[in-house]
Amino acid sequence: QGTRDHPPPQAALRDRLLSAVVSCFKRHGAAAIDTPPLELRETLMGKYGEDTKLIYELQDQGGEPPPLRYDLTVPFARYLAMNKVTKMKRYHVAKVYRRDNPATPPRRYREFYQCDFDIAGQFDPPPPDAECLKIVHEILSDLQLGDFLIKVNDRRIPPRVFAVCGVPESKFISACSTVDKLDKWAPPTSCSNGCSSRPSPPPWEEVRSEMVGEPPPSPEAADRIGEYAPPHAPPELIERLLQDPKLPPHKLAKEGLGDMKPPPEYLTLFGITGKAPPCGGRRGLARGLDYYTGVIFEAVLLQQENEHPPQPVSVGSVAGGGPPPGLVGMFDPKGRTPPCVGVSIGIERIFPPLEQRLEASGEKLRTTETQVLVATPQKHLLAARLKLISELWDAGIKAEMLYKKDPKLLKQLQYCEDTGIPLAAIVGEQELADGVVKLRDVATREEVRM
Amino acid sequence: QGTRDHPPPQAALRDRLLSAVVSCFKRHGAAAIDTPPLELRETLMGKYGEDTKLIYELQDQGGEPPPLRYDLTVPFARYLAMNKVTKMKRYHVAKVYRRDNPATPPRRYREFYQCDFDIAGQFDPPPPDAECLKIVHEILSDLQLGDFLIKVNDRRIPPRVFAVCGVPESKFISACSTVDKLDKWAPPTSCSNGCSSRPSPPPWEEVRSEMVGEPPPSPEAADRIGEYAPPHAPPELIERLLQDPKLPPHKLAKEGLGDMKPPPEYLTLFGITGKAPPCGGRRGLARGLDYYTGVIFEAVLLQQENEHPPQPVSVGSVAGGGPPPGLVGMFDPKGRTPPCVGVSIGIERIFPPLEQRLEASGEKLRTTETQVLVATPQKHLLAARLKLISELWDAGIKAEMLYKKDPKLLKQLQYCEDTGIPLAAIVGEQELADGVVKLRDVATREEVRM
Repeated sequence: QGTRDHPPPQAALRDRLLSAVVSCFKRHGAAAIDTPPLELRETLMGKYGEDTKLIYELQDQGGEPPPLRYDLTVPFARYLAMNKVTKMKRYHVAKVYRRDNPATPPRRYREFYQCDFDIAGQFDPPPPDAECLKIVHEILSDLQLGDFLIKVNDRRIPPRVFAVCGVPESKFISACSTVDKLDKWAPPTSCSNGCSSRPSPPPWEEVRSEMVGEPPPSPEAADRIGEYAPPHAPPELIERLLQDPKLPPHKLAKEGLGDMKPPPEYLTLFGITGKAPPCGGRRGLARGLDYYTGVIFEAVLLQQENEHPPQPVSVGSVAGGGPPPGLVGMFDPKGRTPPCVGVSIGIERIFPPLEQRLEASGEKLRTTETQVLVATPQKHLLAARLKLISELWDAGIKAEMLYKKDPKLLKQLQYCEDTGIPLAAIVGEQELADGVVKLRDVATREEVRM
Repeated sequence: QGTRDHPPPQAALRDRLLSAVVSCFKRHGAAAIDTPPLELRETLMGKYGEDTKLIYELQDQGGEPPPLRYDLTVPFARYLAMNKVTKMKRYHVAKVYRRDNPATPPRRYREFYQCDFDIAGQFDPPPPDAECLKIVHEILSDLQLGDFLIKVNDRRIPPRVFAVCGVPESKFISACSTVDKLDKWAPPTSCSNGCSSRPSPPPWEEVRSEMVGEPPPSPEAADRIGEYAPPHAPPELIERLLQDPKLPPHKLAKEGLGDMKPPPEYLTLFGITGKAPPCGGRRGLARGLDYYTGVIFEAVLLQQENEHPPQPVSVGSVAGGGPPPGLVGMFDPKGRTPPCVGVSIGIERIFPPLEQRLEASGEKLRTTETQVLVATPQKHLLAARLKLISELWDAGIKAEMLYKKDPKLLKQLQYCEDTGIPLAAIVGEQELADGVVKLRDVATREEVRM
């Protein structure tokens, strides 16, 4: 349950996707590492909070029962600590396992790919953060999935805002996840740029009632949070929060707001801001607030419906990142933990829209990369085919032939059309006598002797 | 136990290796499929004979406890049966798991890569067999691992030979594995081409005594096997076996010998025979006789010691293949099983000699592919670096910069040398004023303004 085979078209598409991701990672100078899907129990336990129950355990194999890896972040932290690495830019593309429920919707797989890129080390902070955003931007642009939105927040801000609004620290995480649902429940009902409104119930009222369901926070606190987390955050929100007389001076919150300020400048240098959505920022990035420690971000795809402006699609987050918590220190005997910032590309969520786009375009995805089929028009020419195909292989050319002693030419050309092989290299008795090969363009039927 | 991390140099080398293998598979027109490392218990049980004890089981996750995959062949057979595929050329590169003992030498990993290429379908037989041999030849040649030897046998021949020699069918498998040890114990003592002899005990006597340890076979039977399996099989051995009056006519053996006959012809067409080792064939391919069903083959690397001719190295088999048994039928309700021939590249065994060769060559393997480092020679030029690197990334160029506000130029150039980045793109105040970039070749220190 929760696993699946990937037949050739899916494997080819996944390969194309993974190549796009990996070549971007490489473009940014990351090295690859690989760790086993098996980790020691003690390595995984206590690293995932509530989600620890999703860890996929193995039976005892003599020694401790090793569960399957849950993500690529904890193995990376263990790797850094075990090898005393304090500075590294690495990527890792691999499958992870979770004991999720694949039967009830939304259907979740128990096995899925993660594509992680992380920069660990003591660095002057803005560039690594900005590079992670740039990576998300490059990959989503390369894949031509239409418009997307990258939301940015800082782990240190919301607790202060929530505290000012009357949410005690003990209720912070649950209040966060309630606010986070705003984005998933329904799109905002209106916006100053003239977004179309939707008949769905105003989400704020639902969030508010869920939030005040068990006091505290009070209804007033909930309303105040609504003010601080408007559906569309205007660009000047950071400045307004910094100046807000109701927000008492707080070191962490000020640092957080300070770290939030530089990104726009760097993003302009990186040429990212041109893609800003018509409505500016959006409420709803509470994701990962119980996990990350500094500037956090998340990317969502925007719907391609004939609406103006496009609305966020339900595929949810397709990429996200930030500085993971001090995991390395948990494996280091002295508790040292290098700062780290990373990004994870949600290829499993990008896969369905990519498939849809391919289907809509009518493009037939080839599952092989064969460039030429070696064919013969008469009988008793198997040896000629073998000789020619061998020369092609040795020259690095992707070539196939039918495994029949005497196949009909029509059947060989049909095979090219079925599998998308663009060229047929034909050797018949005449060609053999003349010492040439007839090269045929399968689509245009043009032929040249060479 | 039995798993390991792959740090960047290993991951990069493995990547290079996998690329060579995968590009060869693609050159031969194979599509990729992917199956989960988890399989149902019932899928795996009863498919691996004695080795079933090596299957790595998982704890119950609600439902049946699924073990980890043991190889890629059984998942492929299940895939063919489940999807009613009767014709397919596929490759699959993935990790498999075995509950082997990693503590006692020869150290075996519990997790390792398999690279499989299989052709399933009802085909005229010689070309698929020969293509598998060609693939082994191409990959081992591409990797430049020195001379290698490809041994060919047929599953249907040895049982007849052994029977004639007085080995009853019940003792066949154990007699085979005893003969197989010949190759692992010591190289042959002499050869007509003038091979150097070695002081190791003549292996035949040891094999013989092991074989006759428990009767039958009789000492006479063992000696007769020695005759039929000479250290170096002369090219005419097949013909001699076909004519041998002591071998009574037997349908299967004759088919086997018949199928063994065409390969040399096809191999000549494929340009493989030029690589034949000086001593011709060798005794010892009993590998997989309890598994495969037709023509089987195996490749071993030859030592690069200053001996003439080179002797087989102890790394053992680096590739092997043949027609796997009728596994598909075990998953098909009607028991139909398409014929299949496949090859498996033992990249785990190729890895150590590849590493040695790299070390011996003094070549420093890069773990990243970064083409250019964006550097600045003065302070306060972070924005200029960010702008330039962004343009490079957008142009698809692999670029890095140091994550420091004001790094020293020397430090930036040192980083290039340490990590093998060939070029530095330098923007200083003068370059900014002139609207140019200074491109520096790190090795030669040549600079051009552009």
